[in-house]
Amino acid sequence: MNANSFHVVAEAEIRELVNAWLKAARNRDVEGVVAHYAPDIVAYDAVSQLQFIGVDAYRKHWEACMAMCSGEMIFDAPELHITAGADAAFAHGLIRCGEKMESGEEKASWMRMSVGYRKHDGKWLVAHEHFSAPFDMETGKALFELQP
Amino acid sequence: MNANSFHVVAEAEIRELVNAWLKAARNRDVEGVVAHYAPDIVAYDAVSQLQFIGVDAYRKHWEACMAMCSGEMIFDAPELHITAGADAAFAHGLIRCGEKMESGEEKASWMRMSVGYRKHDGKWLVAHEHFSAPFDMETGKALFELQP
Repeated sequence: MNANSFHVVAEAEIRELVNAWLKAARNRDVEGVVAHYAPDIVAYDAVSQLQFIGVDAYRKHWEACMAMCSGEMIFDAPELHITAGADAAFAHGLIRCGEKMESGEEKASWMRMSVGYRKHDGKWLVAHEHFSAPFDMETGKALFELQP
Repeated sequence: MNANSFHVVAEAEIRELVNAWLKAARNRDVEGVVAHYAPDIVAYDAVSQLQFIGVDAYRKHWEACMAMCSGEMIFDAPELHITAGADAAFAHGLIRCGEKMESGEEKASWMRMSVGYRKHDGKWLVAHEHFSAPFDMETGKALFELQP
């Protein structure tokens, strides 16, 4: 394989990982979510703390977030852009996060997501994840109503 | 070179890029900052908008941010973690951003930074950049006082 076909294969492998991870999150399957994380993952989530270091700390945070959301999970990244090398890759895209209430009403916001991947023993793992909402410079408040 | 030495060289190249970029930002040298960006960069900044698409839109945003900061720039990323492949790489770390007033007082916050790099024609460029502050889930306010 030349370098280009290597990258096409790597990109397809990452996209498969992302789709499995999104599906696990929508299904509230925390173990399915963290199965894609490297043990030494460093995560920057949109809320609460500067960082979560290591998969155990980040799993607890996922469990706490899932517990706060009672409705059907909304977790969609319709246009994820992937840049893949042979054994390091990253992805970025907007992600619509929230929940669908029993009434059918959707409470969701667009957030930003960046992810770093590395290949270890033939398997891609998430080494870094970053979610955020931008804030308004005057009020210091997170901007939840922005549309792409 | 084997794969490992390739990665050591790539990591050193990225670190050199990061240091030049940080120095340009501290010097308010917007052209020096954007010289490291790919034309099609997609940037998620901590403030105002969901995303900035393309180097021209992002340059305007850098200029606007520089214009709002009158003191000496503080822009330090003391522990940047780099994962580098042969032609794709990413970095993440906390970054202390703010300004030093004439009185000597420092107005700065810790933010989170993630960056994606790709090598094109032998040169590394920033293809993606993400800065943010986490927000408090109860108040919706950005958390500027967090310490690493």
